[in-house]
Amino acid sequence: MENQEMKIEGRNAVLEAMRSGKAVDRLYVLDGCQDGPVGTIKREARKRDIPVKYVTRERLDQMSETGKHQGVIAFAAAYEYARVEDMLSLAEEKGEAPFFILLDNIEDPHNLGAIIRTANLAGAHGVIIPKDRAVGLTAAVARTSAGALNYTPVARVTNLVKTMDELKKKGMWFVCADMDGTRMYDLDLTGPMGVVIGSEGQGVGRLVRENCDFVASIPMKGNIDSLNASVAAGVLAYEIVRQRLGK
Amino acid sequence: MENQEMKIEGRNAVLEAMRSGKAVDRLYVLDGCQDGPVGTIKREARKRDIPVKYVTRERLDQMSETGKHQGVIAFAAAYEYARVEDMLSLAEEKGEAPFFILLDNIEDPHNLGAIIRTANLAGAHGVIIPKDRAVGLTAAVARTSAGALNYTPVARVTNLVKTMDELKKKGMWFVCADMDGTRMYDLDLTGPMGVVIGSEGQGVGRLVRENCDFVASIPMKGNIDSLNASVAAGVLAYEIVRQRLGK
Repeated sequence: MENQEMKIEGRNAVLEAMRSGKAVDRLYVLDGCQDGPVGTIKREARKRDIPVKYVTRERLDQMSETGKHQGVIAFAAAYEYARVEDMLSLAEEKGEAPFFILLDNIEDPHNLGAIIRTANLAGAHGVIIPKDRAVGLTAAVARTSAGALNYTPVARVTNLVKTMDELKKKGMWFVCADMDGTRMYDLDLTGPMGVVIGSEGQGVGRLVRENCDFVASIPMKGNIDSLNASVAAGVLAYEIVRQRLGK
Repeated sequence: MENQEMKIEGRNAVLEAMRSGKAVDRLYVLDGCQDGPVGTIKREARKRDIPVKYVTRERLDQMSETGKHQGVIAFAAAYEYARVEDMLSLAEEKGEAPFFILLDNIEDPHNLGAIIRTANLAGAHGVIIPKDRAVGLTAAVARTSAGALNYTPVARVTNLVKTMDELKKKGMWFVCADMDGTRMYDLDLTGPMGVVIGSEGQGVGRLVRENCDFVASIPMKGNIDSLNASVAAGVLAYEIVRQRLGK
């Protein structure tokens, strides 16, 4: 595990990184570049669901640290991603009902870091994030997680709804936070539970919400719409902690 | 009320701003500058407990937007500060037991903004921050508060412990979050209550902690030391909400 987001430059290095299974977050390719090796890299990226962005030579030169990018620069996760199965095993090892936090497109690295920190302390067995349109495990996330990233597994999945479906078959329930839900105190959240937190701007997506077994509302007395995403995750995760403690 | 942090430049403008009671956060003065008007500004700043920093001409030139700083630049709050009395009146108007959040030197504007947002939604009547070594109501704070700063009063006090003493005489109780406290579920937090949240690095200061009636611990099952400050504030504030709702 490394502490920094890695920048991988040059055709061989990028291709090798992907083939070795390194968690590449995104790939920058010189716009208009059509030759064979770059084609191979793009195919490999597609196979692994790695988002590709096409940029100008000036932009690549600017990003480059080595000055030898050969038209491709990849950014890899600062930390390795885990698999959802690892989280289930972790819960089983501890003899606890699985407790995951799922993030529906959190974009702010400070929020992601704070949520991983909360997951660790609330005793969650892992955090699940989607591959697209969400922040990955960058150096900023690692920093704001205050070390929690060393202990709490984070998995990245292609399709959050599909992952929820698979986990439901294994007996898990899902609860998301939304304004018009049932007050969280009135729900039984003690079972094998995934907590779904929506993005900063949009909240929980429609499809994800429809796939939740419960919609929980956090009581809101004020004038504005919603809590900060990492605070909402904390409040809901700790409601689960409270209920599991039988308090 | 304005949305942006104001930069006030030049001797007359800075002096007027202070004398009109504008909430000046900090003052930058040209190092070594000894003349009369600058002396007056420094005296005025001292009277109002405004922190003064001595900087080089290069630094002032860099900060300056007008190019006419005349050796002094002041930064004023994006929003007006409230008085603690206003918060007490607000609670009284609503017929509720006072509920304040006190921050012992929060330095991160994202945390301060998120906490003001939480205070608004949890139904707290105000947030109290210290004048020194803490972030003030800057534009970044206003932004992360997501509008809550328009509704939830924030007071800035010279001495947090003194303010706590005064509020205790009015019947308030204080609870801070710390690892070795009583589990928060086992405390009665339904009375007139101030929640004290420590700084990101150091937690709650010794003197402040000694002046708290309760030390509450948030259950921690993980491997790391502490929650993010704004998450801890959220979890503790919502424990008060839960207890007040009788849930």
